[in-house]
Amino acid sequence: MTDRLVFAHQTLGQRVLFGSGLAAVNVAAEVDRLGADTVMVITGGHDKDFAARVAHQAKATLLYDDVAPHVPLEKAEKARAAAEEHGVDLVVCVGGGSAIGLAKAIALTSRLPIIAVPTTYAGSEATNVWGITEASHKTTGVDDGVLPVSVIYDAELTLSLSVELSVASGLNALAHCVDSLWAPRADPINAAMAAEGIRALSAGLSALNTDPRDLRGREQTQYGAYLSAVAFSSAGSGLHHKICHVLGGAYDLPHAQTHATVLPYVLAFNAPAAPEAASRIATALGHSDALEGLNQLRKVLKAPVALRDYGLKETDLAEAADLILKVIPPSNPRNVTQQDLLTLLHGAWSGADL
Amino acid sequence: MTDRLVFAHQTLGQRVLFGSGLAAVNVAAEVDRLGADTVMVITGGHDKDFAARVAHQAKATLLYDDVAPHVPLEKAEKARAAAEEHGVDLVVCVGGGSAIGLAKAIALTSRLPIIAVPTTYAGSEATNVWGITEASHKTTGVDDGVLPVSVIYDAELTLSLSVELSVASGLNALAHCVDSLWAPRADPINAAMAAEGIRALSAGLSALNTDPRDLRGREQTQYGAYLSAVAFSSAGSGLHHKICHVLGGAYDLPHAQTHATVLPYVLAFNAPAAPEAASRIATALGHSDALEGLNQLRKVLKAPVALRDYGLKETDLAEAADLILKVIPPSNPRNVTQQDLLTLLHGAWSGADL
Repeated sequence: MTDRLVFAHQTLGQRVLFGSGLAAVNVAAEVDRLGADTVMVITGGHDKDFAARVAHQAKATLLYDDVAPHVPLEKAEKARAAAEEHGVDLVVCVGGGSAIGLAKAIALTSRLPIIAVPTTYAGSEATNVWGITEASHKTTGVDDGVLPVSVIYDAELTLSLSVELSVASGLNALAHCVDSLWAPRADPINAAMAAEGIRALSAGLSALNTDPRDLRGREQTQYGAYLSAVAFSSAGSGLHHKICHVLGGAYDLPHAQTHATVLPYVLAFNAPAAPEAASRIATALGHSDALEGLNQLRKVLKAPVALRDYGLKETDLAEAADLILKVIPPSNPRNVTQQDLLTLLHGAWSGADL
Repeated sequence: MTDRLVFAHQTLGQRVLFGSGLAAVNVAAEVDRLGADTVMVITGGHDKDFAARVAHQAKATLLYDDVAPHVPLEKAEKARAAAEEHGVDLVVCVGGGSAIGLAKAIALTSRLPIIAVPTTYAGSEATNVWGITEASHKTTGVDDGVLPVSVIYDAELTLSLSVELSVASGLNALAHCVDSLWAPRADPINAAMAAEGIRALSAGLSALNTDPRDLRGREQTQYGAYLSAVAFSSAGSGLHHKICHVLGGAYDLPHAQTHATVLPYVLAFNAPAAPEAASRIATALGHSDALEGLNQLRKVLKAPVALRDYGLKETDLAEAADLILKVIPPSNPRNVTQQDLLTLLHGAWSGADL
């Protein structure tokens, strides 16, 4: 029998529509359903043509593309002013974290509803977290008013993502699922979502890797990335996320690749102390053992193997262990010493077998 | 690889708190968090002592117990008037479907928020469905305003439910999980919730059956019942539910026992045409085969076996098949003929081996 059930879980209310090739139609239908008259469509550079089609189909008043990473405050203020000037009553954002972030910045002050059409696996569309950057300092916060009312997924929009990028980004999402199982607010509900995410990402990435044009693989990957955002934003940051956050911040390592490389070492470390999580991961990967299942998937996907390939130096590891030691989540199923971290980091740095 | 992903899923936003022995404390904390000043506590007959404690701890203005099954309109109007008269700004309901239903009737017209403390496995606390009965005709509807803002689960409140009733009621919840996998709005998200529900109910009912005082078993059963309500209200009514609805309505069979008896016959019929659902069920039951897993669980639990034990006559079966044939959900994975229904019903009537 399992542990006692004591937890508080907040489910965020949101409508999610899936359908390849249906994004423009689904956006228009949602705009109608929400009774909006004056629609602003926000988009980053990559997705401009598609956003123009969405804007046309949804009879949008304003197509807006002054978008930059991390939502600089002056961009947020300019976009808020544009929304106000046009009497906008609904914001549609098409793109990755930058476009969705700008829409959230508008919603934060105006309380306007958002429809998000994500084109990456970043996951911001499924969270109530906003961020705005002023003088290179990013402020983040939580506000249910910035959670998109509807999210519209269309796997055709991910066809331009290369297999390599899809794999790194999909494994980043998978890492969020795994890490959420021992994160501070882990509970059986977000664990079930995380397990479903692992299943979908594992199946999706394998299919996408075999045939990059296979929309079914792209759909499962996108669906898994959505679940990873739901699980992660519900459960919070676990050991894996803390490690990658320090490595990314202090040594400028690429985000997705760092996550993809570090994950098996964290899993190998935590699994013996977290048998229920390990069992969920194994089942979701369709394998009898969690770590072996993950390693097998990583091999198939030719996943990144060593942090030294991304510029981390062996001489950085001691300092990194110091920095990480200060932010270990108390929820971690196993006590973590500096020596444990050094061993773990050295493995991830060199790509040691597990 | 799986099917294509085309679906619309509505996640209902809700806060869920679990903790045995913590209901009164958790209600008071939620009342504070929501900033309510004038609280009305509604309760049915069984739960009055406990509701009085909750009312005391939450400094409630009004403890209200004029509750009846199926929410008669005159009871609803009287409760609405009481809420208005006292200037109530939050409704807490403690009990089963009747108490929760009355709170929803108040919220329907007043838009007051609800905190629900369920003491049965009926599941109304996790849905946006309301029902009001006038001149023995029940009107139901869907309105997000009647969804409780917070649900507070405390397994100690289920200790008075006998093992026999817990098993029938828990298997009813399990039937909702299974049936949701082929219901009209089935999608991967509600399927994941359903699978987690099957896992929890199977583990919880087995533990509860071995030791009725084992709170872990009661907690898992309660948690599984919550998930069954989430999955069922999201996915809608499948074949199993339609069959049981006809049998309950036309032949006055007991609700939970009818569900518990019919389930394996529906599973045996649909499973060959729904391999993915069958595989999810099997995994959730920890068995290699869905039907064998269910039968094994039913045996352990000494579940109800035959509808004839509840007063259904063999001569009723042909008419029942006629009635059911008219309401077969088009989403059912297998075509259903009248002969199929007759065979299925005869099996459930006699308790035939599967």
